[in-house]
Amino acid sequence: MQLGMIGLGRMGASMVTRLLRGGHDCVVHDHNPQAAKDLVALGATGSTSLQDFVSALSAPRAIWLMVPAAVVDGVLDDLQPLLSPGDTVIDGGNSYYHDDLRRAAALQAKGIHYLDVGTSGGVAGLTRGYCQMVGGEAETVGRLAPIFETLAPGAGAIAPTPGRKAGSGTAERGWLHCGPHGAGHFVKMVHNGIEYGIMAAYAEGLNILHHADIGKRDHAVDAETTPLRHPEHYQYALDLPEITELWRRGSVIGSWLLDLTAEALVADPKLDGFAGRVSDSGEGRWTVQAAIDAAVPAPVLSAALYARFGSRGESDFANRVQSAMRHEFGGHVEKDGPATPKGGH
Amino acid sequence: MQLGMIGLGRMGASMVTRLLRGGHDCVVHDHNPQAAKDLVALGATGSTSLQDFVSALSAPRAIWLMVPAAVVDGVLDDLQPLLSPGDTVIDGGNSYYHDDLRRAAALQAKGIHYLDVGTSGGVAGLTRGYCQMVGGEAETVGRLAPIFETLAPGAGAIAPTPGRKAGSGTAERGWLHCGPHGAGHFVKMVHNGIEYGIMAAYAEGLNILHHADIGKRDHAVDAETTPLRHPEHYQYALDLPEITELWRRGSVIGSWLLDLTAEALVADPKLDGFAGRVSDSGEGRWTVQAAIDAAVPAPVLSAALYARFGSRGESDFANRVQSAMRHEFGGHVEKDGPATPKGGH
Amino acid sequence: MQLGMIGLGRMGASMVTRLLRGGHDCVVHDHNPQAAKDLVALGATGSTSLQDFVSALSAPRAIWLMVPAAVVDGVLDDLQPLLSPGDTVIDGGNSYYHDDLRRAAALQAKGIHYLDVGTSGGVAGLTRGYCQMVGGEAETVGRLAPIFETLAPGAGAIAPTPGRKAGSGTAERGWLHCGPHGAGHFVKMVHNGIEYGIMAAYAEGLNILHHADIGKRDHAVDAETTPLRHPEHYQYALDLPEITELWRRGSVIGSWLLDLTAEALVADPKLDGFAGRVSDSGEGRWTVQAAIDAAVPAPVLSAALYARFGSRGESDFANRVQSAMRHEFGGHVEKDGPATPKGGH
Amino acid sequence: MQLGMIGLGRMGASMVTRLLRGGHDCVVHDHNPQAAKDLVALGATGSTSLQDFVSALSAPRAIWLMVPAAVVDGVLDDLQPLLSPGDTVIDGGNSYYHDDLRRAAALQAKGIHYLDVGTSGGVAGLTRGYCQMVGGEAETVGRLAPIFETLAPGAGAIAPTPGRKAGSGTAERGWLHCGPHGAGHFVKMVHNGIEYGIMAAYAEGLNILHHADIGKRDHAVDAETTPLRHPEHYQYALDLPEITELWRRGSVIGSWLLDLTAEALVADPKLDGFAGRVSDSGEGRWTVQAAIDAAVPAPVLSAALYARFGSRGESDFANRVQSAMRHEFGGHVEKDGPATPKGGH
Repeated sequence: MQLGMIGLGRMGASMVTRLLRGGHDCVVHDHNPQAAKDLVALGATGSTSLQDFVSALSAPRAIWLMVPAAVVDGVLDDLQPLLSPGDTVIDGGNSYYHDDLRRAAALQAKGIHYLDVGTSGGVAGLTRGYCQMVGGEAETVGRLAPIFETLAPGAGAIAPTPGRKAGSGTAERGWLHCGPHGAGHFVKMVHNGIEYGIMAAYAEGLNILHHADIGKRDHAVDAETTPLRHPEHYQYALDLPEITELWRRGSVIGSWLLDLTAEALVADPKLDGFAGRVSDSGEGRWTVQAAIDAAVPAPVLSAALYARFGSRGESDFANRVQSAMRHEFGGHVEKDGPATPKGGH
Repeated sequence: MQLGMIGLGRMGASMVTRLLRGGHDCVVHDHNPQAAKDLVALGATGSTSLQDFVSALSAPRAIWLMVPAAVVDGVLDDLQPLLSPGDTVIDGGNSYYHDDLRRAAALQAKGIHYLDVGTSGGVAGLTRGYCQMVGGEAETVGRLAPIFETLAPGAGAIAPTPGRKAGSGTAERGWLHCGPHGAGHFVKMVHNGIEYGIMAAYAEGLNILHHADIGKRDHAVDAETTPLRHPEHYQYALDLPEITELWRRGSVIGSWLLDLTAEALVADPKLDGFAGRVSDSGEGRWTVQAAIDAAVPAPVLSAALYARFGSRGESDFANRVQSAMRHEFGGHVEKDGPATPKGGH
Repeated sequence: MQLGMIGLGRMGASMVTRLLRGGHDCVVHDHNPQAAKDLVALGATGSTSLQDFVSALSAPRAIWLMVPAAVVDGVLDDLQPLLSPGDTVIDGGNSYYHDDLRRAAALQAKGIHYLDVGTSGGVAGLTRGYCQMVGGEAETVGRLAPIFETLAPGAGAIAPTPGRKAGSGTAERGWLHCGPHGAGHFVKMVHNGIEYGIMAAYAEGLNILHHADIGKRDHAVDAETTPLRHPEHYQYALDLPEITELWRRGSVIGSWLLDLTAEALVADPKLDGFAGRVSDSGEGRWTVQAAIDAAVPAPVLSAALYARFGSRGESDFANRVQSAMRHEFGGHVEKDGPATPKGGH
Repeated sequence: MQLGMIGLGRMGASMVTRLLRGGHDCVVHDHNPQAAKDLVALGATGSTSLQDFVSALSAPRAIWLMVPAAVVDGVLDDLQPLLSPGDTVIDGGNSYYHDDLRRAAALQAKGIHYLDVGTSGGVAGLTRGYCQMVGGEAETVGRLAPIFETLAPGAGAIAPTPGRKAGSGTAERGWLHCGPHGAGHFVKMVHNGIEYGIMAAYAEGLNILHHADIGKRDHAVDAETTPLRHPEHYQYALDLPEITELWRRGSVIGSWLLDLTAEALVADPKLDGFAGRVSDSGEGRWTVQAAIDAAVPAPVLSAALYARFGSRGESDFANRVQSAMRHEFGGHVEKDGPATPKGGH
């Protein structure tokens, strides 16, 4: 079927490519005209303006937005006057589901349908397919099903879940109508919250392995430094690329994120190419906020989020408060600071 | 090659079965004589006593212990007098690596070799194979390699890691000599610590999804209850069996643990068959203790561990302390407690 | 000066009493007419209706609301039509500061002033005075200063902060104009977030002391139970009422919350009078949400909040998910559940 | 009575001073001979060697060690041969209570008594007195009571705990025999664990207040940056020195640590004099390890400990692991890193 795609960054362009390969007809648009070139070469229809883009689509139109969450409203403001009742807008980015509820209501007032699609798969999605979590009216979802089916991974080589009735729904092919407006991004939000937790679990564990040789190092003996009581327990120089490779085979913690970690460690065993400033793109925050609204304990997901904040120096003032307190009550001076007599407390 | 196995519980019995299928010669022993029957039927050599077991093995012997961590020392006390210099004892259970260091030294003094093997794979290991993390002397590890190869999953259907030189080591077949004595259980310990974190990440996320309909419920209006500001944001009745199935396909959080979760939810969508008392078997604790020794922040792994403790009621006294404080400063009375006028604070 | 008070619960009634003792003229109102009786006996002016209440106040009126956060908007809806330009409404409860911003703007449109006052002090405030964090326009704050001064503790017996210029502002007497609308409740919100953290710190520590005798108990030996490696380290039967009393004297962790804890433990050394269901009244949640908005790591404040959620059983589904996973991969059966063979994993 | 003091750092010297003022007879020793000079001027008896120090004490001797935990064993090795049966050694530093158990047993075999005394009070202890948590045999504790009484704060100006029988024990004067060997340091350990939690609670809260103006700043609009949805909620420039001063008066979170924070902020409102590298001196770690041994959830105390580790860069490798994963699955490049096309995931 025909689909219009706005936003031809890495994700949008790959999705169009996958749709073209699947035999769909794509009209594409990006604020950067260069972005469309490769896709046009693959068979997509380009556009010179948003007006031109809309005109190239047959009514009722289906238009997929794949742009940063922060610019969706701006694009919708420009796009909505060009649309007709019966058209459908799909937000496939990482929008906050609160915005979906608002947008769906605003568009509905003009007879325009809205779907929110949480999309997971990353840069590998072009070949693996995209896991899609869809929110909106059932009828609209049904109309777009051919698109979701093509973008989805399909059942592929993944074993069926024991006990599950084969052919019972679309989830086993990698897309699902999760519920009404916002449900797609709600589920994707929590999906990403979980992702943060899993990533941090691996990261912490690898950091412990990375420090397994601390018993070989000298340690200061002063009241500011906790002595390592048993250096003989920490004499291991562990090979993290080999260990992550190992865990990919038969272990309980095998996962796609582990596969990627093993790949990253083969390429850069010390990860020297990274500074360790970990961005967060919103879903982890919203997941924790939903947990708090619902009074659901989420200590792991929160800790993972805070680790990202901390990696960007956001604990700095809190740390200085603690150093200041220690100076006040114990006369403690920060290590690496000016030499001063120390005392216990 | 020949291997003796002590401990024919679920794990031990499955490993013997896999070894027999792989053409190895197994002598087996368990304190429960019934446990050996099925394995003898499959071709294993049974034994009537520990003495009998040891006699049935040709020197230099290789004896694998697959017993709870708490009884390994007892078994070794009984076994060691029956062994000869050159024999090898392998602890394949979940021992603390500190114990490996101690045992290896004690056995070494008698000319007996010791290997520690962290084994992951669970009940599926019989067919999937066991991921094995091995610690000890290289020569001893090399002698036992045929056993490790058979128990391991092998490369199987898992794609090679891009960038990794094919055939470069055993990790890609699912076993690895990680380092000297204790290194196998050290790596397995951290592996399980990570496992706790990943499990908790999924559990928290699914708990949030489970509560996505709280806006449909009535809430008390009093100074003890935080009002839900936006019930309209929590109107989703989500289908967790379908969502976990969905995430298995192409999503960033696909993993074997997720596969198992999807399977559990198909069988029991509300998980009513579980009370939620989550045991921990030691490795999660030891991982956190190693993190603390090494001054490595491990907030996610710790939170996962504490969630297990809390699931067993271990926060109870702390909670009562907090209720007592609230009663003192604000006259707050616990909800569901005796009716008493409330006040803010 | 004259002040009208709406809401004569524990907090409101005590504040009126303190104001009357300080020579102010108070007009009082509560939806429960009985609530005013004692205050009228102390010299307050009662009222038979909201209309009657407003009429009893001289313009420009100053009306303090001391009602649960969830009902402030309802009271304002009833009250606002009865007010005149130049009147001032003070919200002294635990409102969310977002609501202050909205209410201040709405009232301002009608020429009515609004102040948000975060009030700490609990049931002891009547005698100790109330710490007040005030947000709003400086002029309005200035007009109400006599009220704040009387409600505040004053400098009292608390030693001046070394280095601080005596007489430099009101903070040293226990009230402060923190900033524009919402700033009072913002600061109070974070104050309570900190309070949650401090309470949880004591609670966790006391829980550890409470368990210092675990080495005296028998422990199961099975693969589901982590053995206590050194029972000889946990042989202490500690006297918590004496220890909390001790810490009140000269220790670094002396505080008012500790004083209260010591008092609670004298009265009920095992805290058997509490079930341990710890309510939260909103500020802890909002503090964490502000931290997340601002990308500030708040692991301690979050953990304290989650402990409260968990005390109310809100981790239940997450715990069952974990038990289900353990059953899947390891055949683990919950302790206290049906007897079934166990296996390691 | 007579007391020998070894270790004349900040804590030891102040304690000797307080004892001298209390009329006790002190013999002093330090590896740095200069350290004794001021104390000798105050009336203490100096010593030229450890032998000389011991000789200056009348049997049965009472010798208090006030040295870093890491050097206690070394001092004991030197000291013990010089002692006689009936002498008492008191470790007043921050030793791990496991070491107390070992040392007490070793000294007992030679007829020498041992007490462990956890001491809190910091540099203010000279004037405020020291809160002392004592472990050991009751008889030995009783013999040293005059020392503990003088070092302790006494009841002072602190109000008696309501409900507590006046004169019922020593806790109300600031020292307590907590239990057998190790109990003093066990209680002090948990005391310090709580201290870490309280400090972090204040630090996190103040960090949130510190960021209350983030809505005034510009934010990047890209897929790596979470937009601040409501900048109008974060327009507050808060005065932290005034706010901490305020909270000292009548608020629920008043404490000695808050007093010190207010003092630090008066002196250095932005805390620019601190880099924020927060040391930990062992007790926080041991507290968490005890919690884990006892299966007691301690999320707040752990989070506080990890914040200190993190302040010293110990999360670095974990952060790089996460950045590497994000690069793998989403092509995400770290902010401030090389410019590269971004994509969602």
